[in-house]
Amino acid sequence: MTDLRDKRVAIIGLGLMGGSMAGALRGRCRAVIGVTHRSETVVAAFSHGLIDQGTTSLEDGLNEADIVILATPVRVILGMLSEIGPLLPPGCVVMDLGSTKSRVVAQMGELPHHVDPLGAHPMCGKETSGIEAADPKLYQDCRFVLAPLARTSKHTIALATRLVTAVGGNPLILDPERHDRAAAMISHLPYLLACSLVAATMEAGEADDLVWELAASGFRDTSRVAASDVTMMLDILSTNQEAVLAAIDTCADQLRVLRDMVAQGEEDQLRDRLTRIREQRKGMFL
Amino acid sequence: MTDLRDKRVAIIGLGLMGGSMAGALRGRCRAVIGVTHRSETVVAAFSHGLIDQGTTSLEDGLNEADIVILATPVRVILGMLSEIGPLLPPGCVVMDLGSTKSRVVAQMGELPHHVDPLGAHPMCGKETSGIEAADPKLYQDCRFVLAPLARTSKHTIALATRLVTAVGGNPLILDPERHDRAAAMISHLPYLLACSLVAATMEAGEADDLVWELAASGFRDTSRVAASDVTMMLDILSTNQEAVLAAIDTCADQLRVLRDMVAQGEEDQLRDRLTRIREQRKGMFL
Repeated sequence: MTDLRDKRVAIIGLGLMGGSMAGALRGRCRAVIGVTHRSETVVAAFSHGLIDQGTTSLEDGLNEADIVILATPVRVILGMLSEIGPLLPPGCVVMDLGSTKSRVVAQMGELPHHVDPLGAHPMCGKETSGIEAADPKLYQDCRFVLAPLARTSKHTIALATRLVTAVGGNPLILDPERHDRAAAMISHLPYLLACSLVAATMEAGEADDLVWELAASGFRDTSRVAASDVTMMLDILSTNQEAVLAAIDTCADQLRVLRDMVAQGEEDQLRDRLTRIREQRKGMFL
Repeated sequence: MTDLRDKRVAIIGLGLMGGSMAGALRGRCRAVIGVTHRSETVVAAFSHGLIDQGTTSLEDGLNEADIVILATPVRVILGMLSEIGPLLPPGCVVMDLGSTKSRVVAQMGELPHHVDPLGAHPMCGKETSGIEAADPKLYQDCRFVLAPLARTSKHTIALATRLVTAVGGNPLILDPERHDRAAAMISHLPYLLACSLVAATMEAGEADDLVWELAASGFRDTSRVAASDVTMMLDILSTNQEAVLAAIDTCADQLRVLRDMVAQGEEDQLRDRLTRIREQRKGMFL
């Protein structure tokens, strides 16, 4: 049976991603079971109508689950994967929503053979975090990466695809290393650039705090993701270190090229380069 | 008389900034006269209801103006300031909307003594340009810098302040050099960071075009201003070169510090730094 409506889905972690997933799945599966270590979060999840059942006990939460979704920062997922094996019912599908995939998928390979794991990463988010930021529409039109293992069954891939579609996402099956390299460039690098911009402005603000008064929509948008959850980002940076460093270096080189053209007044070259960049950006997000 | 309702306002340049200013002022002054070198733009300005009168002749446009607003890229403003002196009626107020202020205000000092100049810069914009992007609400709640000369009369400063308020802006009187240093950090640097991000992604995209498919809202916002008008940006970079280079260097240093912490796994230091940056950013744009 790969009908989502028959499945009991346990979601571990009810922050922005898990809470939103709970709300998006509720009514589209047999039951949404929220599992989190703080009882206040269980209460909040109930009061926001995000879950059918809630518990602070991992054992109780996983007991009768058909699908388990790990929705915590990446290193918590890694720790959990090494512990939950004995608690998982036979035939259970285990997936995650972690932002990097190589380490998670490798760790999933250590799960007992009576369960069927696959990695996942929805390419969406907000700079706010926690259950209060949860939004059942978060996954609407979101690119939702699925990273199956060699052992993942076709049934499980089909079920996960149905789950992604049910919450409004567009599934894309990807190799975990390829996901991580691309994510370093289009997600982890933008975070570090936004942080560098805010840090540079803080430095400038010590000499003249006018910078804060003049900052407008350009600064607002370019720096937005610097407000992302730090624990989540530290897990991303530490589990995708090599690709992140490569992305920073590529970007720092590009910034240096632009800097040199500005410094040397190479206006024709600068115009060509900025025009190509503008055309590329204008063609996106239409 | 410093009542805006008695004034005929000539706006030279009907792109995003000038067209929006025209639409915002129309009905709040005696007449809005649009001056632009393309007759198609005059027609478009009329059909969008942005102007009371329109002309492609600078002489006709300036003939009876009480206030002249130069709304073109900075270097076109500089060229115009060196030419329009003989065309300006006595007592006329000359202001501009250029993105950098030091060179413009210096050039304004060369205008004939029978006119009263001051620099201005509304801290708003869009990544779209041209009269089709014009929006009379563009200046709503926008920080609107006024940079008077030593010779600018109190009457003119008061009239310009009234004009800014009439279009919904928040006036702030500033020294031009101080404006330019702050703008380099919070506006010109974000543009170059956005461009570097897009350029780095283009480089990565040559090896694997998956980057384009995964790019989501974080990339979208961090890169948005890379789609800004190139001619406008080249003028900004060339007339604020020194401050722009200093801002790039400050930011590149900050990026290098973050890079080194990631490379060396200095997690506690990285957490402290990212947390301070996050708190700073969270406190903005509330």
